[in-house]
Amino acid sequence: MAVGSADLGKLYPVPGVRMSAVAAGLRKPGKLDLVLFELADQSVSAGIFTRNAFCAAPIAICKQHLQTMMPRYLLINTGNANAGTGAAGMHAAHRSCAELGALLDCPSEAVLPFSTGVIGELLPIDKLCMAMPELSKGLGKGDWETVARGIMTTDTRPKAVSRQVQIAGHTVTVTGIAKGAGMIKPNMATMLGYVFTDLAMNKSEVQHCVKKCADRSFNRISVDGDTSTNDSCLLIATGMSNVHYGSLSEEERTEIDLQLIEVFELLAQAIVRDAEGATKFVTLHINGGATEEECLKVGYAIAESPLIKTAIYASDPNWGRLLAAIGRAGLDSLKIEGIELYLDDVCIVSAGARASNYVEEQGQAVFSKSEFTIRVELGRGQVNETFWTCDFSHDYVSINANYRT
Amino acid sequence: MAVGSADLGKLYPVPGVRMSAVAAGLRKPGKLDLVLFELADQSVSAGIFTRNAFCAAPIAICKQHLQTMMPRYLLINTGNANAGTGAAGMHAAHRSCAELGALLDCPSEAVLPFSTGVIGELLPIDKLCMAMPELSKGLGKGDWETVARGIMTTDTRPKAVSRQVQIAGHTVTVTGIAKGAGMIKPNMATMLGYVFTDLAMNKSEVQHCVKKCADRSFNRISVDGDTSTNDSCLLIATGMSNVHYGSLSEEERTEIDLQLIEVFELLAQAIVRDAEGATKFVTLHINGGATEEECLKVGYAIAESPLIKTAIYASDPNWGRLLAAIGRAGLDSLKIEGIELYLDDVCIVSAGARASNYVEEQGQAVFSKSEFTIRVELGRGQVNETFWTCDFSHDYVSINANYRT
Repeated sequence: MAVGSADLGKLYPVPGVRMSAVAAGLRKPGKLDLVLFELADQSVSAGIFTRNAFCAAPIAICKQHLQTMMPRYLLINTGNANAGTGAAGMHAAHRSCAELGALLDCPSEAVLPFSTGVIGELLPIDKLCMAMPELSKGLGKGDWETVARGIMTTDTRPKAVSRQVQIAGHTVTVTGIAKGAGMIKPNMATMLGYVFTDLAMNKSEVQHCVKKCADRSFNRISVDGDTSTNDSCLLIATGMSNVHYGSLSEEERTEIDLQLIEVFELLAQAIVRDAEGATKFVTLHINGGATEEECLKVGYAIAESPLIKTAIYASDPNWGRLLAAIGRAGLDSLKIEGIELYLDDVCIVSAGARASNYVEEQGQAVFSKSEFTIRVELGRGQVNETFWTCDFSHDYVSINANYRT
Repeated sequence: MAVGSADLGKLYPVPGVRMSAVAAGLRKPGKLDLVLFELADQSVSAGIFTRNAFCAAPIAICKQHLQTMMPRYLLINTGNANAGTGAAGMHAAHRSCAELGALLDCPSEAVLPFSTGVIGELLPIDKLCMAMPELSKGLGKGDWETVARGIMTTDTRPKAVSRQVQIAGHTVTVTGIAKGAGMIKPNMATMLGYVFTDLAMNKSEVQHCVKKCADRSFNRISVDGDTSTNDSCLLIATGMSNVHYGSLSEEERTEIDLQLIEVFELLAQAIVRDAEGATKFVTLHINGGATEEECLKVGYAIAESPLIKTAIYASDPNWGRLLAAIGRAGLDSLKIEGIELYLDDVCIVSAGARASNYVEEQGQAVFSKSEFTIRVELGRGQVNETFWTCDFSHDYVSINANYRT
């Protein structure tokens, strides 16, 4: 059902990162559901997390641990979100860190726990801990595609992206994995994303970089407008390439920044391509806003409108619904006369009404493609923002109506 | 597909109101699609209209005309929204008022035009005008159910509510009709609502009353979070009962206010019951908010979450999704420990986690009903708000994927 190619391309190892995945039987027997990353000693990590007021137990612990020390291990389970689980959930998440720390001889605070899956059920912590010895034995044997599979929930395909760039005679690698599928909306989604690089970066550089990249990728997608309790996105710099980000020339830094942003963007796009029930992948350009905020308002009004999403599903270029969404986005003194709308390169609305040369067949031809662009020209300023979204199909309803059964 | 009984009950005539409906062939041959109300000379009307920045041509004209004089005629067409139609749309709407005014010997400004249907197509104004003689000849012969049918679009049943109350030896009647179905969200929806009473009210009384009643009814429903370009709600007081609202005792006024609000609420509920694809009718109580605004945020976060709406469709009491929606509603310093959740009288969440006595079968029993209540206790203050919403079914997708075909 996902849109576009499933080919992951070449996935380069990142020196300083070892990984493993096992089937711990947390929810479905035999499904890979527990993943471990081991990070080289000097690695520097930073993350951004859901803004949902009710964040899951592991999120609270991740934030604490990141303030205490740099992580050595990332422990990720699927099948259970450990959210809405109160004190018992906190206890379970703490125990997972403590037991893994004891097994691998590191402080509990050097372990970051992540959970994704059903909300409101207690984490099967005994099963999880029982699988740890096998999990840790597998370190170094795992590959990106396997761990990308290991963090999937309703995802239909693994998501991984890798890039290499030559900087001052050294090869720098950026490789990331992500999972998504539903409950996807800006400010992180039901989304886990982990991007690893062998660049050497200090803490403030990693923090700045993960924020900037997420704002142009994971924070510009929306499947259904629901922000999950468990969203997390981490950037880890192992330093093993001996290329120091802080010492790069401006040109070199631009080069590596482009690679980093591309990995983040492609992972975010992969989540939309594989969104629950998605049959179309849509890039939204909201151009000519006076501020970033008004581009965001218009972008999400379109990306989250069930009426637009069902019209996209039906290949019906219903531009009236597009105009209506822009009109209700809450922009001050918006004039319909200033609006232009394009489907790919076809101008469908000009001066707030149907473009004079537009014929319906042109719009239908665009909407019939599995990937296309909707561009809104607001004509109010110089700010442009890009978003990615998908359609709303019968399968979205089926998947979410049957999720727990 | 609609939820609950289709019985409209007894629909009382309102002295001073005559009506008519014809099939003008605006979109589908043979379907009633043009409705006319004639209001007695001294009638006082007030309306509230969509806040969508791109309001339809007739909305702009309604607002102008209401500022110029009191309306004598309401002209309502379905099949075409006359929105996103630029100058041609304004011209068509003006022409409809002018031609009807000429036919019925009143100023153009005494006619209020309303349109609902597809956005972005030119109003078939010639057909509309050609049907006016037959329409005006029918005045006095029409009945409420027929005109309620005449304003339907994807509605599956007409919506009309009527109440009578004895005040100081006089009978006061309140009768209203509405249409809805999709693009339904607070601040008016793709929704037309007309409530008529033979009370005598002055302009400020009608204005105050229509605002107050709409805020407790049409502005407390959401089907899909989309605010239409054409929403309108009118209250018309013909004065023919000779009961003057301004001269009533407090007790009498409370009595008539209750009837008015009930008519508005039942019409709003009828829209939700007959929402596109709806199989469940849900009343949402958001209690214990510090402000009305935070109750609204939580109410709409729940009412507009596709994940919750699909879970309701599937009779899956997925309270994790409910908690997640409350958590992302944007309330300051919200503590999960303070939240209680009830499905009808079953407490499912207490202190932010699954209630200790709750077993899934209880929640399933509630969610399996076609009508039930979700109650959120925020524990932050004294403000309570009530909303009405529905589920999200395969049929919602089908209806909106095929709307224009």
